[in-house]
Amino acid sequence: MRHTISVLVSNEFGVLSRISGLFSGRGFNIESLSVAETLDPIVSRMTIVTRGDDKVIEQINKQLNKLINVIKVHDFTGEEHIERELALIKVTGTPESRAEILSIVDIFRAKVVDVSPRSYTIETTGDEEKIAAITELLRPFGIKEIVRTGKIAMARSLKQK
Amino acid sequence: MRHTISVLVSNEFGVLSRISGLFSGRGFNIESLSVAETLDPIVSRMTIVTRGDDKVIEQINKQLNKLINVIKVHDFTGEEHIERELALIKVTGTPESRAEILSIVDIFRAKVVDVSPRSYTIETTGDEEKIAAITELLRPFGIKEIVRTGKIAMARSLKQK
Repeated sequence: MRHTISVLVSNEFGVLSRISGLFSGRGFNIESLSVAETLDPIVSRMTIVTRGDDKVIEQINKQLNKLINVIKVHDFTGEEHIERELALIKVTGTPESRAEILSIVDIFRAKVVDVSPRSYTIETTGDEEKIAAITELLRPFGIKEIVRTGKIAMARSLKQK
Repeated sequence: MRHTISVLVSNEFGVLSRISGLFSGRGFNIESLSVAETLDPIVSRMTIVTRGDDKVIEQINKQLNKLINVIKVHDFTGEEHIERELALIKVTGTPESRAEILSIVDIFRAKVVDVSPRSYTIETTGDEEKIAAITELLRPFGIKEIVRTGKIAMARSLKQK
């Protein structure tokens, strides 16, 4: 099963290496990982997406909690939450394909962030399915390069107080 | 000096742990890191932002190139490139602050992705300065939570053929 795990850590040398080592040591590949500072510059948040056996993930979560630099671990699996990632996609653009590419950009509420005589660089955000959908539509034009951030997640707010 | 380094790797257990270990072993903290699959699911791209002595970074780059799972290393430092990150920001929202929050969202071309009677969750993308600017403007309303992806980078296209 797919798991999205959020880990709050104190910014110290080696914490990323130790955490990713916990996953690889148990044979889990990390599908995506994002880490950046929070409002407090000595604290960072990691969002890890991995697939694997629920029991083993539970064990990894427990071990994460035991690490000295780990402040909090939260597994979003089975919980209402928002997931988003950002992708930059560079596609081949000719004068003939321009209108069609721009209409795809429009439909997905994406943005063109760089243009050259032969290419467009498109910035898009969304969940996994949306990124996959726009990538599929742009693929026929020729994708020169794609760079993705990996997913981040946040719990949905309660609709009732 | 700040460095943004892009590393193309083959998706195997332990590669993330080995790469982050190279940085921490030399006393470098990783400011942000993003890793996600490329179009080829057995290849991932990592974007690492770190600060430090240029000569040591050069050594790290050389060592990265020697790792078996590393396909390509590129340091964007001093080169025309696009940098972007994505942030989800949950702010306290009252009926009184609603109009002001929404006008900030508008100015930054951000999006409201979740609403509750007491909060707004805002999705925004940009370079470091833009994310810092919207965070500063939203801070007086009360930021409940912020999650960021870390930066990704792409070379700018040549304007002339």
